[in-house]
Amino acid sequence: MDVINIQQKLSLFNDTWTPKVISKVDGHQIYLAKLDGDFIWHQHDDQDEMFLVIEGTLNLEFRDREVTLNAGEMIVVPKGVEHRPHTSEGCSVMIIEDASTDHTGGIDDPLRKENHDHI
Amino acid sequence: MDVINIQQKLSLFNDTWTPKVISKVDGHQIYLAKLDGDFIWHQHDDQDEMFLVIEGTLNLEFRDREVTLNAGEMIVVPKGVEHRPHTSEGCSVMIIEDASTDHTGGIDDPLRKENHDHI
Repeated sequence: MDVINIQQKLSLFNDTWTPKVISKVDGHQIYLAKLDGDFIWHQHDDQDEMFLVIEGTLNLEFRDREVTLNAGEMIVVPKGVEHRPHTSEGCSVMIIEDASTDHTGGIDDPLRKENHDHI
Repeated sequence: MDVINIQQKLSLFNDTWTPKVISKVDGHQIYLAKLDGDFIWHQHDDQDEMFLVIEGTLNLEFRDREVTLNAGEMIVVPKGVEHRPHTSEGCSVMIIEDASTDHTGGIDDPLRKENHDHI
């Protein structure tokens, strides 16, 4: 039961699109990730996904619209909703989702990671 | 599926120890709360509880120690662990916990709220 300093944790890595586990609340994992450029279209059929922007700007494209989140802004993408994260300037985000969630929604892609490091 | 600006949501209320629901990720509710002074000793037998400090300083007392969290710091209090939040200067926090969680752990106290507003 440690106090987690988000900036200190962010200083431990620079790789992008590789969520790092920092804690867990019941069955939901809490990740930090650095994002830069474009991710792939995907959806999580059975899990909601919360994004909280810590630094920078995150764009989330949906099939019918796009939203922009700045630092201090968050959104919950409901289960089953296709989305594509992308960011031209880069950003750092906290992500909270059920630990069973596959970050590409199961899509085989060079960006997909089988496992996530704990930091 | 709205973008939620945390500072804008915090500007909507001033009452303390009354968590406001801002969103939900699966069965876990996401709250904002303003805290000032002392809360009561309690525990949640079956639910973990995540605290993320947005502004100010939060002290969490446990039976064997005490921790201090500043803005940008978080902790997950595991289920079954007695804790007492208190803060002399006041703070604003995000709390994430299963929607079934009773914020006083079921203890009848003047600070206990039966229901939580959605903002």
